[in-house]
Amino acid sequence: MQALLSKIFEDVKPLMGKGKVADYIPALASVDPNQFGIAIFSNEGDLYQIGDADTPFSIQSISKVFSLTLAMKHYGKDMWQRVGREPSGLPFNSLVQLEYEHGIPRNPFINAGALVISDMNQSRFASPHYAMSEFVRRISGNPEIKTDLQVADSEYEFRHRNAAMAYLMKSNGNFENEVEDVLKSYFANCALRMSCVDLAKAFNFLANKGYCTISQEQVISEEEARQVNALMATSGMYDEAGHFAFQVGLPGKSGVGGGIVAIVPGRFSICVWSPALNKVGNSCAGVAALESMSKHIGWSVY
Amino acid sequence: MQALLSKIFEDVKPLMGKGKVADYIPALASVDPNQFGIAIFSNEGDLYQIGDADTPFSIQSISKVFSLTLAMKHYGKDMWQRVGREPSGLPFNSLVQLEYEHGIPRNPFINAGALVISDMNQSRFASPHYAMSEFVRRISGNPEIKTDLQVADSEYEFRHRNAAMAYLMKSNGNFENEVEDVLKSYFANCALRMSCVDLAKAFNFLANKGYCTISQEQVISEEEARQVNALMATSGMYDEAGHFAFQVGLPGKSGVGGGIVAIVPGRFSICVWSPALNKVGNSCAGVAALESMSKHIGWSVY
Amino acid sequence: MQALLSKIFEDVKPLMGKGKVADYIPALASVDPNQFGIAIFSNEGDLYQIGDADTPFSIQSISKVFSLTLAMKHYGKDMWQRVGREPSGLPFNSLVQLEYEHGIPRNPFINAGALVISDMNQSRFASPHYAMSEFVRRISGNPEIKTDLQVADSEYEFRHRNAAMAYLMKSNGNFENEVEDVLKSYFANCALRMSCVDLAKAFNFLANKGYCTISQEQVISEEEARQVNALMATSGMYDEAGHFAFQVGLPGKSGVGGGIVAIVPGRFSICVWSPALNKVGNSCAGVAALESMSKHIGWSVY
Amino acid sequence: MQALLSKIFEDVKPLMGKGKVADYIPALASVDPNQFGIAIFSNEGDLYQIGDADTPFSIQSISKVFSLTLAMKHYGKDMWQRVGREPSGLPFNSLVQLEYEHGIPRNPFINAGALVISDMNQSRFASPHYAMSEFVRRISGNPEIKTDLQVADSEYEFRHRNAAMAYLMKSNGNFENEVEDVLKSYFANCALRMSCVDLAKAFNFLANKGYCTISQEQVISEEEARQVNALMATSGMYDEAGHFAFQVGLPGKSGVGGGIVAIVPGRFSICVWSPALNKVGNSCAGVAALESMSKHIGWSVY
Repeated sequence: MQALLSKIFEDVKPLMGKGKVADYIPALASVDPNQFGIAIFSNEGDLYQIGDADTPFSIQSISKVFSLTLAMKHYGKDMWQRVGREPSGLPFNSLVQLEYEHGIPRNPFINAGALVISDMNQSRFASPHYAMSEFVRRISGNPEIKTDLQVADSEYEFRHRNAAMAYLMKSNGNFENEVEDVLKSYFANCALRMSCVDLAKAFNFLANKGYCTISQEQVISEEEARQVNALMATSGMYDEAGHFAFQVGLPGKSGVGGGIVAIVPGRFSICVWSPALNKVGNSCAGVAALESMSKHIGWSVY
Repeated sequence: MQALLSKIFEDVKPLMGKGKVADYIPALASVDPNQFGIAIFSNEGDLYQIGDADTPFSIQSISKVFSLTLAMKHYGKDMWQRVGREPSGLPFNSLVQLEYEHGIPRNPFINAGALVISDMNQSRFASPHYAMSEFVRRISGNPEIKTDLQVADSEYEFRHRNAAMAYLMKSNGNFENEVEDVLKSYFANCALRMSCVDLAKAFNFLANKGYCTISQEQVISEEEARQVNALMATSGMYDEAGHFAFQVGLPGKSGVGGGIVAIVPGRFSICVWSPALNKVGNSCAGVAALESMSKHIGWSVY
Repeated sequence: MQALLSKIFEDVKPLMGKGKVADYIPALASVDPNQFGIAIFSNEGDLYQIGDADTPFSIQSISKVFSLTLAMKHYGKDMWQRVGREPSGLPFNSLVQLEYEHGIPRNPFINAGALVISDMNQSRFASPHYAMSEFVRRISGNPEIKTDLQVADSEYEFRHRNAAMAYLMKSNGNFENEVEDVLKSYFANCALRMSCVDLAKAFNFLANKGYCTISQEQVISEEEARQVNALMATSGMYDEAGHFAFQVGLPGKSGVGGGIVAIVPGRFSICVWSPALNKVGNSCAGVAALESMSKHIGWSVY
Repeated sequence: MQALLSKIFEDVKPLMGKGKVADYIPALASVDPNQFGIAIFSNEGDLYQIGDADTPFSIQSISKVFSLTLAMKHYGKDMWQRVGREPSGLPFNSLVQLEYEHGIPRNPFINAGALVISDMNQSRFASPHYAMSEFVRRISGNPEIKTDLQVADSEYEFRHRNAAMAYLMKSNGNFENEVEDVLKSYFANCALRMSCVDLAKAFNFLANKGYCTISQEQVISEEEARQVNALMATSGMYDEAGHFAFQVGLPGKSGVGGGIVAIVPGRFSICVWSPALNKVGNSCAGVAALESMSKHIGWSVY
């Protein structure tokens, strides 16, 4: 495995820096694009890593999977009244579909859906971001995971489109808390800094029937773990989910920090990271690395 | 397996007839809703069946997978210039997205996408429907498979929305042949009559790395078979693909005739059939049967 | 004229109470639907009135014309960089077009457009609502005109859809001030209470080449007055502007308080009021009264 | 008047050739852009003209007003069940709104609306294009008006988008005749060749309460003439109707051949022509000439 990882790393390395680092907030725009890391964590607890796999980065939308997991633990099936499970076919921050579908977002991984999930967690936890931080530290086994407050503040300063979505949902009766409060929790969660190794570990429960070997807890049920994977498979990669299923064939979730998490059910959790993005917002080198891995190892679930 | 099939059949039987038979053309509206069959075909050649599994029905959109397969065999990767691979997030016969995306349909399983695929096959085969019929007879091992000409004619008579899509794509330069010719081939393919047993057999190559044990041919490559499964997983169930992935977790393709085909990669191909449809156009009892199977056997790929 | 007014009043009276009083906020829902008034004010200063023409009501969207006038006085042609002049073809509070057109509202009379105009006035006036109140008192000659603070507060409490629009424009760089501040000014302006007589007088400058005979001031230039009338003619009546032009043929502006103002260029300003609305949000009896007037007097400008 | 015409002609002449001749069909693309003519016809029968006012050109969408007039003469108010009277807010050949509004076009001047009107005339006349030709020859007093068959054929060859609209309406039950037949009539009407003088004369009935002084017939009633003018005022200038009302203030109808007809109710009918178009499809020099006229003479109806 380690040999294979080295081969893939060398093959894909030339793509490092190709694409464009997210620049909608200054704090993200200053990241060095020439970074690239891979970490693989097996259900048996073996860790394989290469490149900048220990460097923390802004997890951004990858946090949506953690938020969803926390909400599923608490709300169970009832939560699907407020958010759908269908792919959206539109940019991740579109208001059009939200308008046509009366404030019910299509799935938990578009921004509107993640905001509704955050609203649920806001209703449940005294401090949703504290709960989230504690959760990711526990399931990754890394008590040092921190939030980049500068990124969180900067996201909040440029919150307007997300605020528009939240207010539109509030006008449709699908938002319980104050918009500003939920936005602050949401941005703080996006601003968590974790490394490939942290994320590969933290996501292992999804490859392992809902069980986290690190914290030794059943995070969610086996059925729920499959459901989260199904949602990632159909909606986890912005407007490239179909292409990713076609080329890679694994449930995955990306973030504009350049990280991508992927799950090989029953076997591995993977995290790749490289900050330069393609035009739909996924890491160029990251997607290429996962395609290469899938081709070499035949990991497609399909 | 046979015992399990009996149990599922009994559990789901009460749903038979719930929902509404497709009635947009008279020839489909007259089908008896109280029919229900299941067939499972294993990669080893074992066949399990129950209920009306030998009764032929109109395969309708299930034919889109066969058309896609024929096009992939001939055009390879070039075909993806003309049709996308992303879920659509809109009804299967919507013109809105086609307009916004300049005549490039989102995937091969919405109507517009299937029309483009049919246009490709029209350019390639002297008689596309003859080629298709011969193909499905061969891979199902049933030389008796026929086209319901009354259904084909009736679909053609009510062709207007599909004609609108085809003309819109032609105005965008994404349609090579005469609209009327392609529509006739397309409707003839939809009007093929096959049973659950026929379809379970004909789809087995997708569970078996592209190889058909019946005709003993490599229909498409292993990689291509996975790609077709990935497309079914993200876009095969109309506007319920996400829900189906969440609940069933298998690549699937449905038709308004009430049939649903599903693939357990590496193991089985399945066909369920019951004519009464839910509001997005999928068989009510069919979806329930696959949910029950998935729950009892843990077949989800995720 | 007075005789004609009596005839029209009697003809249309049976429609009084037909339709539905605006009920999106409690303060408006409690208005008695069985009220109906008409006032006509001539360029020579003659006033004709009938029914409840002296009863103050919530002017709501009619205030958008006053806001536009104040902005035009200050910004001149530059303002049209930030708001268009085309009819919208969608509901007055739709976010869809705003999204597709990158935060530039189609015209000053849809909500998004009026919010941009309010944002302009917010940048200009220390207290935009004070400036507005003073303006309408002056041009109507009625120093007693007041704001219904309960309505303003209630609108603010249910501000969410308007807040969504404002934030969407802010995310597109088309909003200068704090969203909350502008919303407060905007709702206060909508909550002004004026009678038919007040409004007929206050709108006379649009029938009179921009000159107000009451305050004896050139409010805007003759050309600008025609331009405001043109905007009312193409976009003043929600999604019924075309129908209103077809049936009535006068520039008009309606509000969900049940008021409608119309202009006979060179001759008269008219205000009709009856609180029960048709399904696009215009006063049922009000539209009927103006149709009847137009038919009897041949006032259509076309 | 003639002196004024000369002045406007000289002022606007430098704009002649600015913009881009319609090039979606070869027959239109070859027109010399350096042509410019104006004709004004008064209700008293006086004719003023300058420049290339006697040169015939392809009237294109201006024919939609003639088709509407013929349909109104026959169908009266019933026709408004099948086509709306509201501005569209979208490009003239958009399918989006048609889809959302279930095949009922927003007004008779977008392509979908004109196709429905043509379908009405197809149901009524043995030869709709013959009826149309005879009508325009009669009301213009020019028996030499001809159809450019090469343009008609070329439009038909590139009919695909219009065919898509017609089929979409047919799928919604709002189209009675064969799509191909109606398209042929429709394109033949668009391909009529008339000069500025012809059109100024032919449109005079709309300035003259429905009465044509040339053929000495009441073409439509005074009320209907006002209604046609109202439709032109709100929807006659593609996606520039609001701007045209704002700047010119007259009912107008343009065509991609570069002609624009405008009405000064009670006084004049005007036709300007110059083939080079702005980006929404209206003649650059034509719009400028009408703006200049309106400014110099104060013709705005508002």
